[in-house]
Amino acid sequence: MRVVNIGAPHFAAALEAQGVEVAQADWRPPAGGDMKLIEALEKLSTPAVAEANAKALAIINSGHPVLVDVGWARDLIPGMQRTTILHSGPPNRWETMSGPQRGAVLGALMLEGLADSPEAAEALAASGEIEFRANNDHGCVGPMAGVISYSSALFVVENRAFGNRAFTNLNEGYGKVLRMGAYAPEVLEKLRWINAEVAGALQGALRLMDGGLDLRSLIAQALHMGDECHNRNKAVGALFLREMAPYLARAAGVGPEALARILDFIGHNEIWFVNLSMAACKATLDAARSIPGSTVVTCMARNGYEFGLQVAGLPGRWFTGPAQKVRALYFPGFTEADAAPDIGDSVITETAGIGGFAMAAAPAIVQFVGGTPELAAELTAHMYEITLSESPVYSIPAFGFRGTPTGIDIRKVVETGILPSINTGVAHRLPGVGQVGAGLVHPPANIFADALLALAEAAAPQTAPTRRYDDPI
Amino acid sequence: MRVVNIGAPHFAAALEAQGVEVAQADWRPPAGGDMKLIEALEKLSTPAVAEANAKALAIINSGHPVLVDVGWARDLIPGMQRTTILHSGPPNRWETMSGPQRGAVLGALMLEGLADSPEAAEALAASGEIEFRANNDHGCVGPMAGVISYSSALFVVENRAFGNRAFTNLNEGYGKVLRMGAYAPEVLEKLRWINAEVAGALQGALRLMDGGLDLRSLIAQALHMGDECHNRNKAVGALFLREMAPYLARAAGVGPEALARILDFIGHNEIWFVNLSMAACKATLDAARSIPGSTVVTCMARNGYEFGLQVAGLPGRWFTGPAQKVRALYFPGFTEADAAPDIGDSVITETAGIGGFAMAAAPAIVQFVGGTPELAAELTAHMYEITLSESPVYSIPAFGFRGTPTGIDIRKVVETGILPSINTGVAHRLPGVGQVGAGLVHPPANIFADALLALAEAAAPQTAPTRRYDDPI
Repeated sequence: MRVVNIGAPHFAAALEAQGVEVAQADWRPPAGGDMKLIEALEKLSTPAVAEANAKALAIINSGHPVLVDVGWARDLIPGMQRTTILHSGPPNRWETMSGPQRGAVLGALMLEGLADSPEAAEALAASGEIEFRANNDHGCVGPMAGVISYSSALFVVENRAFGNRAFTNLNEGYGKVLRMGAYAPEVLEKLRWINAEVAGALQGALRLMDGGLDLRSLIAQALHMGDECHNRNKAVGALFLREMAPYLARAAGVGPEALARILDFIGHNEIWFVNLSMAACKATLDAARSIPGSTVVTCMARNGYEFGLQVAGLPGRWFTGPAQKVRALYFPGFTEADAAPDIGDSVITETAGIGGFAMAAAPAIVQFVGGTPELAAELTAHMYEITLSESPVYSIPAFGFRGTPTGIDIRKVVETGILPSINTGVAHRLPGVGQVGAGLVHPPANIFADALLALAEAAAPQTAPTRRYDDPI
Repeated sequence: MRVVNIGAPHFAAALEAQGVEVAQADWRPPAGGDMKLIEALEKLSTPAVAEANAKALAIINSGHPVLVDVGWARDLIPGMQRTTILHSGPPNRWETMSGPQRGAVLGALMLEGLADSPEAAEALAASGEIEFRANNDHGCVGPMAGVISYSSALFVVENRAFGNRAFTNLNEGYGKVLRMGAYAPEVLEKLRWINAEVAGALQGALRLMDGGLDLRSLIAQALHMGDECHNRNKAVGALFLREMAPYLARAAGVGPEALARILDFIGHNEIWFVNLSMAACKATLDAARSIPGSTVVTCMARNGYEFGLQVAGLPGRWFTGPAQKVRALYFPGFTEADAAPDIGDSVITETAGIGGFAMAAAPAIVQFVGGTPELAAELTAHMYEITLSESPVYSIPAFGFRGTPTGIDIRKVVETGILPSINTGVAHRLPGVGQVGAGLVHPPANIFADALLALAEAAAPQTAPTRRYDDPI
């Protein structure tokens, strides 16, 4: 006797226990069988939603991010005060901040001269005098703790197709760095150097370039060079440097020693480009952030406490759930017990169809995040099931140059139960330490369900209710 | 009635014509059934040959090429005169030179001030006063026409494991270039600049580096970044630049404008590294060029007229056959009718286990040489059938980080009839034009058979003849 079991696997287990040969089909009821969700899905299966989504996808797929300038947060971010701290993820308060984000805040307050010790910084952070804001609500993104303060140098990325701009800080490299929650004096000294000499030279170089640096082109090339441009940015960083180096050499006021120092720093920081990759994706997605009725995800971000999501149909509204544990490869000397939960704005890359969604383009990344090249390919393949389109610009050679899965549809996530697959770094759970590993993670499932219900609720009542097959004519 | 046909496919065709369903098995008799070759294979199936090959493989697999200096042919190549011309492939004469190689010779004679017009150069080349030598016989390699003359700047690559050195000229980039047979005034002007300013700056930079630039490490990284380091050198070129740029900035006597020009030239020449890849492979293989009894291929090279091969057991002896037609993708405006036959020393990369042998690592290369990513993977997979080992250093992520197929055994080539698969550029067949495309090519089959017979002949008579299963005891 042979049985094909569809659905709940415990039936299969029971049959197998009786010696019956069972083939378990990988079928689950849509939306886990939850009737409220199924009704919401039905309500959002209209031509109006399809049209709104088509609009969102057209905008995302024609996004054209270009690095046009370097400036400083004090000049670029409206309302930025010395007491303003921008951070990664959905909005957060000092009380609920994760260790690495707290550490970065302490560092930033000392960097800005508002405190002269970690203890004084902590007292100030808890005093209520500091205004904490979410990067993504201000056109910004930052990896890990994502802290941007008054004197932070920022890259300015313009979406050439729509004119909107996004900002990101400059990557600090490896070791003890603010973005991982470290705040020792040498961390701040390096940051000061980056915000002054490195940023100044890059500004000078960019202003010599005609039309800026085309980030879309760099990312497209890098996806053919083993990068997925979230956790692996080795090729794209080298491409960035080869484009910028002649302009850095020509930029006024940079002597040979300073130039060598800058070239060395950028060239040997293989994650240098991740901030630019993020800003490119942010500029691309922000153009689609407000499209009534659309079920396309326009923002995902984490702060180590919560994972937040925004959807085009409900602009500016965060749907949040608990930040998850990362399945990671740990650096020598560290274990899961050291890890902070999922943190950083870098998941904006997956939201735009690269990063984990393009992992099949980056088989060598498994040496860093774990798994096998086959698994990397499978993870990307799954993402086509929850996205609405394939990028016309970013493609995967190993998939016969198929476009990367782009445009996450919350309906598809809820219907299939497949969650977005994210590549990420892992910070130590305590302030002041740094990175401890890298791995794979998912958002919490509830945020997709919550966004779906909210969208269904917001949807205008249908003037002509959908006819059902069993309705009397 | 169903028939499985093994061997000659015309039987299958005859059966099919009679409506019989036929499955054609891909079986061929060893060495095409040639009894002389089968006897030679038997004679070379001894423990002594296995031992010699193990020695060759140990040497090749521990090769450690490092870029240590830049110099000039007049100083580096023993016996180099102003009237000496080194060229790619096996030894050649003016009378039998292919168009692109002739063009490059004309350019070199004008560059050296020995002729002031192409006509005068042609008369000199044909006069017998010019000594033509094969690069590979002098520790050199050069892509395409491969012409190296008295004032050519050369990279010096040292095999750190064994102390031997290899030399190669500096890549000229795209468009009208000497290596493709062009010799117009602007070609020579660019060459003069490369041999002076670019070479001088690189020499200065390398002499500031502690221990030189590790080419083995760069190639190993690039194979995880979509390069195969023969026809695709995009990642490895960017890695080269990111390593060299800080030293170029520090190198004495290079002003900002010159530096910018050099960084721009190297950074935007995506085949810049092919010469270094070739010299790295040459230095690696040369350490194994003389191992009595070994059937491992240590050199392959073409000059557009002939394809030449050397084997470790018969050092310095060339086995040659006709240069083949390339199956190519042609640049707009060109067709197969414009193509010169297979040319250049760059097949040294396949001989060392990269290039076409690592094509599975470079799926995006098919956009340049034709085919599909699947074909690229298949071609590499086949190469494991004619090689004796897998590189412990160079690996292919898509094959689960399997080492590249390394150490071509002429016995395996003859036995299986599988020829090495080579990625290559294609030059115009006439002097003075340039590159017309890129594609895939094989060596002529006879050179493996000829080398096998010569090795069998050279093998010492066996003191104890091999016993056969049917010999009386």
